Parts: sequence; C-alpha cells; structure tokens
Amino acid sequence: MGLGSLAMYALSKDAQDLLFGQARTANTFSSEPVSEDQVKALYELAKWGPTSMNSQPMRLVLARTAEAKEKVINHLFDGNKPKATMAPLVAVVAADLDFHETLPEVFPIFPGAKDMFADEAYRTQFAISQAWLQAGYFILGVRSLGLAAGPMLGGNMAGIDTDLLAGTRLRTLMVMNIGKPGENPWFDRLPRLDYQRAVTTL
Amino acid sequence: MGLGSLAMYALSKDAQDLLFGQARTANTFSSEPVSEDQVKALYELAKWGPTSMNSQPMRLVLARTAEAKEKVINHLFDGNKPKATMAPLVAVVAADLDFHETLPEVFPIFPGAKDMFADEAYRTQFAISQAWLQAGYFILGVRSLGLAAGPMLGGNMAGIDTDLLAGTRLRTLMVMNIGKPGENPWFDRLPRLDYQRAVTTL
Repeated sequence: MGLGSLAMYALSKDAQDLLFGQARTANTFSSEPVSEDQVKALYELAKWGPTSMNSQPMRLVLARTAEAKEKVINHLFDGNKPKATMAPLVAVVAADLDFHETLPEVFPIFPGAKDMFADEAYRTQFAISQAWLQAGYFILGVRSLGLAAGPMLGGNMAGIDTDLLAGTRLRTLMVMNIGKPGENPWFDRLPRLDYQRAVTTL
Repeated sequence: MGLGSLAMYALSKDAQDLLFGQARTANTFSSEPVSEDQVKALYELAKWGPTSMNSQPMRLVLARTAEAKEKVINHLFDGNKPKATMAPLVAVVAADLDFHETLPEVFPIFPGAKDMFADEAYRTQFAISQAWLQAGYFILGVRSLGLAAGPMLGGNMAGIDTDLLAGTRLRTLMVMNIGKPGENPWFDRLPRLDYQRAVTTL
C-alpha cells in the first residue's frame, strides 16, 4: 500500500495493515452483534491517546434501542441510511461542551485549568477540536478489535443533538457505524495526497 | 494499563503498548535527528486514516531551519519553549483552508464536491475538524516509528500563521515536537475518564 521502508517502523507490518494500510471504511455490515465488552475494550485502549490539558472531551453515545437508532438515522442523508440501518452498532461521536468541569480531576497539575474555559465560545471550539482529535484514536481503536468503522458526517448533526441529546451538553460531531464488514463492503480506494503536497519543509 | 481482555483485540499487545498503553507525550528529547525518510514513512502510513469526503485537509510544516524553528518557538508559552528547542524536529500541524481545490482529484466519485465548500465559514470549520481528526492518526503514526510525539497547543497559534505561514492558506492547529525521548521525559500519567462517564448507551 505504498508504505515507507518497513525497517523504519517499530510497528509490525500486521499492525500497520490492520490499522492503516489495509483498513477500510465499511459500507455494508454483517449482522454479528458488537458487545458491550467490545466497546469497553475499545474505550480502554483509545482513551490513552493524548489531548490538550488531558481534557478528553469526546463522548460516545451508543444508539442501541430501536428508538434511539431511529433518532439518529432520521437525520442522515438518504445515501447513509441503509448503512446505518444495517450496522450492528451505531455510535454518535460527540463533544462534551462542559468538559472543563472534569479538569480539576483529570488535570490536577494545573489547578486553574477550569477557569481558563469560562468563555463559552472558546470552550466550545476547544471541546470540538480535541474531540475530533480523539475521534482519530477511536476509529483506530475500532480497527484494533478487528471491526470496521464507518464514520459519517453526511446528515443533519444538529438534528441529532435536538432529538437524541436534548437535555445534555453534548454536541454531535459525527455518526459512526461499527461492526464486521458485510458483503461487498468496500468502494474502490480513494487516492491520498502525495507527500510533497501535504508536507512542507521550511 | 487497564486494557480490556486481550483476547478481544486483533491488534497485538506490543502494538497496543507502542501506540496507546505505554506511549507517552515526551517533555525532553535526545539529540538524535529525525530524518526526512522517517517523516515520509510516517506520512505514508498515517495518510490512510479516513476523512470525510476523503478531504485530507491536514498539512505538516517542518520547521527545519533555525529561522523557521525560531518563528514557531517565539509564539509558544514559556513553559513549552525548552521542549521545542530541545526537540530534533518541530512540526506545525495545520489545516489547508482551501482543501476543497483538491476534491476533484481525491474525491472523483462526487464531481460536485468542491462546490459544496463555496462558503468560507463552512469550509474553514470543516477543514479544521477533519485536520484535527487526521492529527490523531499522525500522533499515532509518530509512535509507529518508535518516536515520541509532543503535541502542544499552549501558545499563540495565530502568531505562527502570521510569522511562518504568511502567504499561504494554512491555519495552525498545534505544534508537535518529534524525536526520541531524552532524560526524564515523562510526567506522571494523568487519569483518564472511566468508561461510564465517557460512554452512554441509549
């Protein structure tokens, strides 16, 4: 898959393939359930990814009941609805806009941390940015279980906030299907930017 | 490190430790250089992480010259300056606010994709969110090379845009030190949120 010289990596080729080189976004899923223990295992791994000030603002909302799942799927674009309907687990990846309340506990080395986030606009953009950073860890965490992730932004995410997350301080970032791939799960692989276009040396 | 049952993972214990369980943000670095080939290897792995519409808006700017490195370090908070000064490689992780220009090439399956991003405010928030998502892949990519990453948000990121990235359409998200850990590189590990607080089932 166009990886660099294998000798450069401390990560095994199998692990590279599992997480990056051969991993793909699934568009169909088998009916095999995703258990609570699997989600816990995923969390216990991906939670270690670093965030600024150890803020960890990402939250997962698992839409397990038919009612919850419908509230998510209703707000997806039509092209995404069949995928989510088929997926054994649909998770809403969200940011906790009041993550700063946990800072005294998770960032005790800086007692004034919480006070830095009194401004709601600043706090919101910080929460969203660090939750997206964590989303990267969690997509790879799904793959670490041998499952396929199907992240989806195509839909009305604000509608999910209203219908599913009313009464919380969570803001939906994206929806993620999780499960074993089904039949014909992959589209053709899309091209990535060449190194020279993504990396500049000054 | 409190991981779930090992039998659940398709990813080996060694790989789990390298990327998540034992990996740490380094606060000191050895003088061993980080080569261009290492950065290429990192890119060729992490580039495969998925982004919405395959948009890939993240760009890396490597501050290799003393002049470029100074333009970055000048804008960091004082507590971060020694770390960056010591790091063999300082990278600016940025979002390309004009990423949509590449969509006809990287997302050919939807010819109208570029036109969805005519609105600059929408385009900017999309670029920033997806570049943060990629930043997660790239931090793990650094670790896949056996190197330590030191991501830093503490500073005036807009000042880096002005001093280092003037004349481009790049927006600085964070600065990342990259290298082998030096002496006493780690702080005590900070706590992570319990599963029950980060994951809700509906």
